Amino acid sequence: MEAPISVVANATGNATAAAVLSGGATNVIIPAVSAVGLVFSLVLYRQVAAVRVAPQTPRGGAGSSSAYLLQSEAGLGDSVEASAAQIQQAITTGARAFLFTEYRYMAGFMVAFGALLFVLLGSADGFKGAHAHAHPADPDAPPPALANAVFTVIAFLLGATTSIVSGYLGMEIAVFANARTALEARRGVGHGFLVAFRSGAVMGFALTSLGLLVLWLAILGFSRYFGDDYRALFEAIAGYGLGGSSIALFGRVGGGIYTKAADVGADLAGKVCAGIPEDDPRNPATIADNVGDNVGDVAGMGSDLFGSLGEATCAALVIGAQSADLVGAGWDAMLVPLCVTAAGIFCSLVVSFVATDISPVRREADVERVLKVQLFLSTALMTAVMYPVLLVLPDNLYLGPEGSFEVMCPTPEAVAANSRCVSGAPLAAFACVAAGLWGGCVIGFVTEYYTSHSYRPVREVAASTETGAATNIIYGLALGYKSTIVPVGVLAAVVYVASRYMSMYGVALSALGMLGTLATCLSIDVYGPVCDNAGGIAEMSELPESVRDKTDALDAAGNTTAAIGKGFAIGSAALVSLALTSAFVTRTGVLQSGVDMLAPTVFAALLVGAMLPYWFSALTMKSVGLAAMEMVKEVKRQFDTIPGLLEGTPGHGPPDHAKCIKISTDASLREMVAPGLLVILTPIITGTLFGVEAVAGLLAGGLLSGVQLAISASNTGGAWDNAKKYVEKGSLVVGGAIQRKGSECHKAAVVGDTVGDPLKDTSGPALNILMKLMAIVSLVFCDFFLGINEGRGLFNMGSTGN
Amino acid sequence: MEAPISVVANATGNATAAAVLSGGATNVIIPAVSAVGLVFSLVLYRQVAAVRVAPQTPRGGAGSSSAYLLQSEAGLGDSVEASAAQIQQAITTGARAFLFTEYRYMAGFMVAFGALLFVLLGSADGFKGAHAHAHPADPDAPPPALANAVFTVIAFLLGATTSIVSGYLGMEIAVFANARTALEARRGVGHGFLVAFRSGAVMGFALTSLGLLVLWLAILGFSRYFGDDYRALFEAIAGYGLGGSSIALFGRVGGGIYTKAADVGADLAGKVCAGIPEDDPRNPATIADNVGDNVGDVAGMGSDLFGSLGEATCAALVIGAQSADLVGAGWDAMLVPLCVTAAGIFCSLVVSFVATDISPVRREADVERVLKVQLFLSTALMTAVMYPVLLVLPDNLYLGPEGSFEVMCPTPEAVAANSRCVSGAPLAAFACVAAGLWGGCVIGFVTEYYTSHSYRPVREVAASTETGAATNIIYGLALGYKSTIVPVGVLAAVVYVASRYMSMYGVALSALGMLGTLATCLSIDVYGPVCDNAGGIAEMSELPESVRDKTDALDAAGNTTAAIGKGFAIGSAALVSLALTSAFVTRTGVLQSGVDMLAPTVFAALLVGAMLPYWFSALTMKSVGLAAMEMVKEVKRQFDTIPGLLEGTPGHGPPDHAKCIKISTDASLREMVAPGLLVILTPIITGTLFGVEAVAGLLAGGLLSGVQLAISASNTGGAWDNAKKYVEKGSLVVGGAIQRKGSECHKAAVVGDTVGDPLKDTSGPALNILMKLMAIVSLVFCDFFLGINEGRGLFNMGSTGN
Repeated sequence: MEAPISVVANATGNATAAAVLSGGATNVIIPAVSAVGLVFSLVLYRQVAAVRVAPQTPRGGAGSSSAYLLQSEAGLGDSVEASAAQIQQAITTGARAFLFTEYRYMAGFMVAFGALLFVLLGSADGFKGAHAHAHPADPDAPPPALANAVFTVIAFLLGATTSIVSGYLGMEIAVFANARTALEARRGVGHGFLVAFRSGAVMGFALTSLGLLVLWLAILGFSRYFGDDYRALFEAIAGYGLGGSSIALFGRVGGGIYTKAADVGADLAGKVCAGIPEDDPRNPATIADNVGDNVGDVAGMGSDLFGSLGEATCAALVIGAQSADLVGAGWDAMLVPLCVTAAGIFCSLVVSFVATDISPVRREADVERVLKVQLFLSTALMTAVMYPVLLVLPDNLYLGPEGSFEVMCPTPEAVAANSRCVSGAPLAAFACVAAGLWGGCVIGFVTEYYTSHSYRPVREVAASTETGAATNIIYGLALGYKSTIVPVGVLAAVVYVASRYMSMYGVALSALGMLGTLATCLSIDVYGPVCDNAGGIAEMSELPESVRDKTDALDAAGNTTAAIGKGFAIGSAALVSLALTSAFVTRTGVLQSGVDMLAPTVFAALLVGAMLPYWFSALTMKSVGLAAMEMVKEVKRQFDTIPGLLEGTPGHGPPDHAKCIKISTDASLREMVAPGLLVILTPIITGTLFGVEAVAGLLAGGLLSGVQLAISASNTGGAWDNAKKYVEKGSLVVGGAIQRKGSECHKAAVVGDTVGDPLKDTSGPALNILMKLMAIVSLVFCDFFLGINEGRGLFNMGSTGN
Repeated sequence: MEAPISVVANATGNATAAAVLSGGATNVIIPAVSAVGLVFSLVLYRQVAAVRVAPQTPRGGAGSSSAYLLQSEAGLGDSVEASAAQIQQAITTGARAFLFTEYRYMAGFMVAFGALLFVLLGSADGFKGAHAHAHPADPDAPPPALANAVFTVIAFLLGATTSIVSGYLGMEIAVFANARTALEARRGVGHGFLVAFRSGAVMGFALTSLGLLVLWLAILGFSRYFGDDYRALFEAIAGYGLGGSSIALFGRVGGGIYTKAADVGADLAGKVCAGIPEDDPRNPATIADNVGDNVGDVAGMGSDLFGSLGEATCAALVIGAQSADLVGAGWDAMLVPLCVTAAGIFCSLVVSFVATDISPVRREADVERVLKVQLFLSTALMTAVMYPVLLVLPDNLYLGPEGSFEVMCPTPEAVAANSRCVSGAPLAAFACVAAGLWGGCVIGFVTEYYTSHSYRPVREVAASTETGAATNIIYGLALGYKSTIVPVGVLAAVVYVASRYMSMYGVALSALGMLGTLATCLSIDVYGPVCDNAGGIAEMSELPESVRDKTDALDAAGNTTAAIGKGFAIGSAALVSLALTSAFVTRTGVLQSGVDMLAPTVFAALLVGAMLPYWFSALTMKSVGLAAMEMVKEVKRQFDTIPGLLEGTPGHGPPDHAKCIKISTDASLREMVAPGLLVILTPIITGTLFGVEAVAGLLAGGLLSGVQLAISASNTGGAWDNAKKYVEKGSLVVGGAIQRKGSECHKAAVVGDTVGDPLKDTSGPALNILMKLMAIVSLVFCDFFLGINEGRGLFNMGSTGN
C-alpha cells in the first residue's frame, strides 16, 4: 500500500525543531485549559445558584432548591417567588420527562448503530483480529479491520455520551436559571442579565471543555494501541465526531420538532381558537412551549455545535494524518486542531469577565451591546492568540491528496518545485483560522441585519402586512432568499482562501476557527431561551409590569444574538461538512486526481444530493404541522372538558400540562425517525451500491443546496418573528393609524410568524445536521465502501465512464 | 493547436457508409418537415378563424374579425357575441401594447448586447480580419476571431428575431381564440375544446417549425464561409441559442412579473379591498390579468421552450463538432440534433389528429384524458421513429473531451481499447433520446400528481386550511419540497444513462429527446390560458351559467396540463443547462482532465452559483410584490374617483383598464433589469476575473440548486392554486360543514393561492432562464475568457492550487 509510516516519520522527525512548543506541550495545554474551563463553569453555576428563588430557600445548590420547590408544590409558599418556582418546576419536570424519554431512544440507537458500525467495519477482512497490533512485528501491515471497528465504536460511544452529558447539563442550568432571571430582574436589568448570561456560560464552557478533554483522552488512550500510526488512529477517532453528530440528530431534529409542535400548537390553540394570549397560564400548551425553548434552543443548539466541534476536529485530524510531513512532525503538530479549540476556550473565558465585571450591563440599552462586544472581543483576542499556537506546525508541509506518504517538502527547494507544498505553514494556517473566525463574525452580523427589526429589511416585511398575510409571506420569502447572498459569498471566500493556502487541511482549520469562539457563542445562545422563559414566568406568576418590561428587554437582545448564533451554526456546519467531504475524498485514495463533477456518476449524485435537503425539509415541516394540529386538538379538548378553564373562573381546574408535553415528546420522537433514517442511510446505501465517487457527489450536492436552504429558512423565519414583534410594540403606522395587537396587520404578521416557526427552528437548523452527519457517516464507513469492488459499489460504477 | 480537421475527415470519411439516410438527406428532411409544420399551423389557424365571433362577421381571417370588432366598439352590436368580442379586443389591445413596448426594449437590448458580443469576441485577435476564410490556403489556421464575432452576432440576431416572431404569433392566436372558445362552448364542450386546442397547436407547430427552419438555413448559410470546419461553424451558431434565450429572459422574467403583478394586484384589490369577484368587469385590473395570462403563459412559456430547443441543439452541435469521428461522418451525421427535432414535429403532427378527429372530446370528462393521450402517444410514436433517424450516426464514435481530434474509433479494436469509444453509436444515441423523452413524461405526470386536486397531496393542503392560513402555507411549502424527489431522481437517472452511453453528447441528445414532443407540449400549454381567458370572457360577457360550466371544465383540464408543461420546461431546462455546461467545458480545452469539484476556485464558484437562484428569486418575488401593491393603489384610486363604479350603479363610468395595463407593463420592464443583469453579467464577470474553472463551477452550482428551487416553487404554487379551487368547488368538509367561497377555510386558501402566484408563474419558471442563459452566455464568451491568461482570468486563478 503505502510506505511504512514509522520509516517516514523517522526520516522527517527532526524537521520540526523550530516549533515554539516543545514535544508534549499539548499534553499540558489541552488538559489544563479543559480543566480550567470546567472549574470556571462550576464557579458560574454556584453564582447562579446563589440567587434565592424563594425567601425560605437557603443559598445553595440545586439540591436545596429542589427541596424548596417540593414544599412550594405542597402549598407551603404562595408568594410571587413560590409561583415562579412552581412554574420553573413544571418546566424542569417537563424538560426532564422529554430528555429521559429521548435518552431511552438514544440508548437504543447507540446500541443498534454501534453494532452496525462494528459489523460493517469489522467485516472488511472477515473479523480477523489475528495480527492484532501487528506494527512492532511488521511495520508494513495496516492494523486489522477488527481493531478499526472496535476503536471506532468506542469513539462513537464516547462522543455520543459526552454530547448527551453536555446537553443535559446545559438544559438543567437553563431551566434552573429562568425563574432566577425573572426574580433578579426585579432588582434591575443588570442583575437579571448576570444570571442569564452566567447560566449560558455554564453551558458554553462545560460543553467545549468536556468535549475537548474527552477527545484528548480518547486519542491518548487509542495511541497506546495504534502507536504512531496516526492514520489508523484518527480513522478510529472519527467515530467521536459521528457520536456527537448522531446525538445532534436527536437534539436538532427531535428537539426542533418538539419545540415547534408546542409553539405552533400553543399559538394556534391560544390565539386562533380560544382567543387567549400565548403565555396565558390557562393555555395547557404553554408549559410545553416553554420546555420546547430549552429542548430546542439549548439542548438542540448545544448538541449541534458540539457535533460541529467534534467533526471539525476529526476532519482536521484525518486529513492531517495523510500528510507525511505533519506525521513526521510528531504528536504536538498532529494535535494542533485541539490546540485551536483550547485557545478558543481560553480567550472566551478571559473575555467573559468583560460582561460580568469590567463593563457590565447597567441600563436596558446596554444589553445588546454587551453581548455583541463579547463576540467581537473573543474573535479579536483569539486572532491574536492563534499565531503562536500554530507555530507548532512544521514550516514546510506537503498537503496534496495524491501519494501523500511519498511526497514531502523537507527543503525550500522541494517547496518551490511543488505547488502542493506549503511553505511557511504556520502563517498559512493562521490565515485559514483567521478567515474562519472573522468569516463567522461577518455571517453572524449579516444574519442579524436581515432578522432584526432595527434594520430596513424586517421593517419592509412588517409594512407589507398592510395588504395582508399573502404579501407578508411573499416579502418574507424574498428576504430569506436575499439574505443568502453575503453569507454564501463569505463562505466561498473562506473556502477559497483556506483551500488555496492549505488545501483541504485549511478548510478544516477554518471550520475550527469559526468554532473557536464557541464558548462565547453558546453563552449567548443559551442566554436567549433563558430570558425568553424568564419573560414567560414573569407573566405567568404575575410579576409587576415593570419586571416584565425588564425581561422583555433582556429577551429582545437574546433574539438578536440568537440570530447571530444561528448564522454561526449554519456557516460552521457548511465548513465542517466540506472538511469532512474532503477528508472522505482524501481517505478513499481512489479519487486522488480529483472528483470530476461532470462524470456521469458524480453529476447524477450531485443532483440527488442537492435534492436531499428539500426532502428532509419536507419531512420536518410536515411533522411540525401534524404535531401542532394534534396539540390544538388536545387544547380544545381540555377547554371543552375542564370546567371553568376557558372562562378563567376562579378556582377552575388546572390545565393538564403533562398531556401536552407528552404529545410534543411523542410526536418529536416518532417524527424524527424518517428524516433520521434518510440522513444516515442515504450515504451508506449510495456508497454500497454506487461507490465512493457517488458518495462524494452526494455530499457536495447536499452541502451546496443545504446551506442555501438553511440560511434562507432561518432568516425568513427570524424576520417574520421580529416583524410581528415590531407590529406588537406599536411601531408600524399605516395611514396614520398605529397597528397594534389585534389589528389586521398584526393578524397578518402572526400568520408569517407561525409559518416561520418550523422554518427557523426545525427544518432550517436541522439542515446543519443533514450536511454534517451525512459526511461523517461517509467518512467512518469509508473502509467499508472501499471493500466493495474497490470503492466502485455493487453496481461497479465509477470513473471509467469518465 | 489541433490536427487539421479536413485531414481527419478524409481519414474517416468512408466509415459512414452504413447510414440509412444517404448524404444530404437531412437537406431534404429538415426543410420538408419544417414546411409541413408551418403549413399545418396555417391550416389550423384558418380553422380557428372560421368560428364567427358575431353574427355579422363574415367567416374569415383576423382582418375581417378586426373589422367587426371596430363596429362592435362603435356600438353597432350589443349581443353576447358583441360583448365577448369587445372584451377580446380589449385583451388584444392590451397584449399588443405590452408586446410592442417590450419589443422596443428588446431591440435596444439586441443592439447593445450584439455590440458587446462583437467587441468582446472580435477583440480576441485584435479585430484582424486579414486572413478571412483562410482555410483553402492554410488548412491549419483557425478562422479569425473577427469571423467568429460577425457570425455569432448574426446567429444571435436570427435567434432573437425568430423567438420574437414565434412568440408574437402565439400571443396573437391565443387572444384571437379565447372569445371564440367561449362562444363555441355554447355548442358543446367538444366544440370549445377544438378551438382552444387548435389555437394551441398553431403556436406549437409554428414555433418549432420556424425555429428549426431558420436554424437550418443559418447553418447552411454559415457553412458557405466555414466549409467543413464544423467546430468554428457551430461555435458561431451557438449565438442562435443565445438569441432565443435572451428573448426568453424578457418573456419569462418580464412576462412573469407582468402576469403576476396583474393577477396578485387584481386578487388583492378585488377580493381583499373591495369585496368583488376577481373577474368582475368593474375591477379595473381584470383586463390586465387576462392579458397577463397570455403574456406569461403563452409568450413567456413559448420563448422559454424556444430557447431550450435552440440551446439544446446548439449544445449538441458544439459538442458533436469536437468529435473527429462525427466530423468525419459528414454533414448528415453532424445535423442529427436537428433531425431529432424534425422527427418530433412529424410525430406531434400525426398524433394531433387523434385529438381533433380520431378520438375527439365528447363529454366534459373526456377533456383531460384527450390531452394526456396526446402527450403519451407523441412520446410513444417518437420513440418508435427515433431509431431509424439515428442510424445516420457512424457506428463507432470517440466522444471524450481530451484531444478529441487525435483519438478516433475507426475499428472495433479501438473501441474495445478505449472506454470513451462508443460502439453501436446509433443504439446508444437512441437510449439517450428515449431516456429524455420518457423522463420528461414521468416528470410531467409526477408534477401533475403533486398539483392536481384529484390526488392526496393537494387535498391534504386543502384540509390544512382548517387551522388557518399558516398551516396552509406550511403544508404547501412541505409539498413543494417533497415534490422534488422523483423529478430530480429521474433527471439524475437520465443524466447518468446519457453521459454513460454517449458522454456529454448524450446529455444534449437527451435534452433534445425531452423537447422532442415540444409541439404537443406547447399545444397543451397554450390551451390552458386560452380556456382560462375564455372562462373570464364568459363571465364578463354574461354568457349563461351552463356555458361557464363548460369553460370551467375546459380550464380545469388546462390547469392539469399546465402543471405537466411546467414540469417539462424545468426538466428540459436542467438538461439543456447541463449540456451547455458540458459544451463549455469541452470547448475550453483547458479543463480536459475534468473539473475537480473540490479545487479551491471550483468549490467556491459552486457555492456562489448555488446561491444565485436564491438571489434571482428574491429579486423577482419582490418585484411582483411591489408591482402588485402599485396595482392595488391604482384600483383603489379608480374606485374612489370613478362615480358609481364600486357600487355598480347602472351607467357607471368604465374602469380605466389601460392605466392598469400600463402599470403592469412598466413594472415588468423596469423590474426585470436587475435579475436580467444578474444572469447575463455574473458569468461574464466571473470568467473575466476568475477564469473558466470558476465559470464551470458557477454554472453547475446554479443548475444544482436552481432545479430544486424551480420545481419546489412551481409545485407549491400549483398546489395552493388547486387547493383553493378544491375548496371553491365545495369538496372540503370540516366538522360536517362544507367550506365554500367566503368561509374561513377559503380565506386561508386564498392566502396560499396569492403567495403561490409569484412562486409558480414568476420566480419558479424564471429559474429555467437563469440556468440556461448563464450557460449559453458562458459558451458564447468562451473564446473571450480563454484570451485572458489562458482562461485563468485577470486574477490568474485556476487549477494550480489543485
